[in-house]
Amino acid sequence: QWMMLDWKPKRPDAIMDPFGIGRIVQDGLVFRQNFSIRSYEIGADRTASVETLMNHLQETALNHVKTAGLLDGGFGSTPEMCKRNLIWVVSKMQVLVDRYPTWGDVVQVDTWVAASGKNGMRRDWLVRDSQTGEILTRATSIWVMMNKETRRLAKIPDEVRAEISSYFVDSPPVVDEDSRKLPKLDDKSADYIRSGLTPRWSDLDVNLHVNNVKYVGWILESAPVSLLETHEIAALTLEYRRECLRDSVVQSLTSVLGNDVGSLANAGFVECQHLLRLESGGEILKARTEWRPKYAKRIGSIGELPAESA
Amino acid sequence: QWMMLDWKPKRPDAIMDPFGIGRIVQDGLVFRQNFSIRSYEIGADRTASVETLMNHLQETALNHVKTAGLLDGGFGSTPEMCKRNLIWVVSKMQVLVDRYPTWGDVVQVDTWVAASGKNGMRRDWLVRDSQTGEILTRATSIWVMMNKETRRLAKIPDEVRAEISSYFVDSPPVVDEDSRKLPKLDDKSADYIRSGLTPRWSDLDVNLHVNNVKYVGWILESAPVSLLETHEIAALTLEYRRECLRDSVVQSLTSVLGNDVGSLANAGFVECQHLLRLESGGEILKARTEWRPKYAKRIGSIGELPAESA
Repeated sequence: QWMMLDWKPKRPDAIMDPFGIGRIVQDGLVFRQNFSIRSYEIGADRTASVETLMNHLQETALNHVKTAGLLDGGFGSTPEMCKRNLIWVVSKMQVLVDRYPTWGDVVQVDTWVAASGKNGMRRDWLVRDSQTGEILTRATSIWVMMNKETRRLAKIPDEVRAEISSYFVDSPPVVDEDSRKLPKLDDKSADYIRSGLTPRWSDLDVNLHVNNVKYVGWILESAPVSLLETHEIAALTLEYRRECLRDSVVQSLTSVLGNDVGSLANAGFVECQHLLRLESGGEILKARTEWRPKYAKRIGSIGELPAESA
Repeated sequence: QWMMLDWKPKRPDAIMDPFGIGRIVQDGLVFRQNFSIRSYEIGADRTASVETLMNHLQETALNHVKTAGLLDGGFGSTPEMCKRNLIWVVSKMQVLVDRYPTWGDVVQVDTWVAASGKNGMRRDWLVRDSQTGEILTRATSIWVMMNKETRRLAKIPDEVRAEISSYFVDSPPVVDEDSRKLPKLDDKSADYIRSGLTPRWSDLDVNLHVNNVKYVGWILESAPVSLLETHEIAALTLEYRRECLRDSVVQSLTSVLGNDVGSLANAGFVECQHLLRLESGGEILKARTEWRPKYAKRIGSIGELPAESA
């Protein structure tokens, strides 16, 4: 694949915008931005949290649109979209994390867009260690248009298509689609339920909605602490169903698939399923997470146990 | 004051590390780092949140210690501190915000340290718009040493003083000390109480403690929404009393001083007092916040009402 082949360490053009808002590369089709991982973006494990990674994905998507000269008023809306009160909403997102960077690491995020069916747009990301070129994260997402007033989904108008289609690349998704249907999760099948979650003031975005990325934090609110302590997310699939507003009260449900919830700390690979729903009824988000033991990667590559668990 | 005079736009040395981890300037006494404000660091007002500003202060403090070659293992601890199991804890912090930057703005943060009494260290920050040099934020803080095992405060050992004292500048604090005593705040005098606040997994730092900056978010949890919607924090004084651990359950109390809580939206300058306490007893943090109407600054400088409120 072309987007896999272009990386070389310390290319001259990589020096032009090492930590700025990024720039267009590869014949205008790929947007690239570097991020230095900051101390407040790492968590208890000293590695960047999955929310941090998703924040970087969001930032590059917006800066891509901005740098292409297509940002107009809204959060990622083009001029023709603004005229029609249209906004982008994400309907599905898949993230595969091979390795989490740590404080001081610099990651290079590449992003590009493609057509998706008749009325959608796909956006992919490839995140690398900027020093070694090692792939850290791959992500793909599907976006559709919504009317800002009616909150109903809309077709892509021809005028909008004319603005954006020259940016579409013709390549398969960087992550194979996880088309496994998420089974129904309810009070009966859930292993853990956390109720009464409400947006903090700082969770709201400029539209006074809860930002997409915050949902991931809420999913983790119902994940068992024994899992959070011993495992890290290797894969994440999110299906967005409904908006969450500032006065929403949310429940987070988690079910652990095929594992005894009493012995998660010693488990190998763990798979979970999640649901965020309004306490007043209505699904906000369905999700699947796949977890690996925290030191699995390092054991594999260094060939010995780290001091902490030796 | 020397730290006020050195700023010039587009100095050649400012180009050397425009968005990296920063560097030492001014004869080795001042650490300087630029931050590009990211889309996920702004809130409903499209401006950086006060937590974002405080994150940038934390990041420059740590990078200052790191760049000076004094970071050893811990989060800001020097080698001699690590030998003795000592860590820095913040006891007081004052922040004055003249203007909040917005998405895409680049801020330049300068920080330096000074002696404070016999057993404390002062750290100051000056945040400027990197394009214009306009001062956006001034902050000062007092740090003391704590034994990591006993959790008791400690004197600064001579060996640690020898490591750090050559970095001390001899200048008054960048913010005059707010020595007004914070009056007692309890269930009776509080106008708003929010109970049952618990750390999210992502609120924990590498020591499994709630990060200092997160406390500000909790303070705002009991601030009235009518105030959050119409006003912004102009000044913030925090007095840290006790650590918050991962299983702590916290109450946030706010009292509005000298204003009718029913008419905050139309109020001018508003002053509040806050307390975070453990539900099991014990004060975590006392705070004072001063708020100005959101468009006060802009009205002052542009001379007309912005569209939103016209």
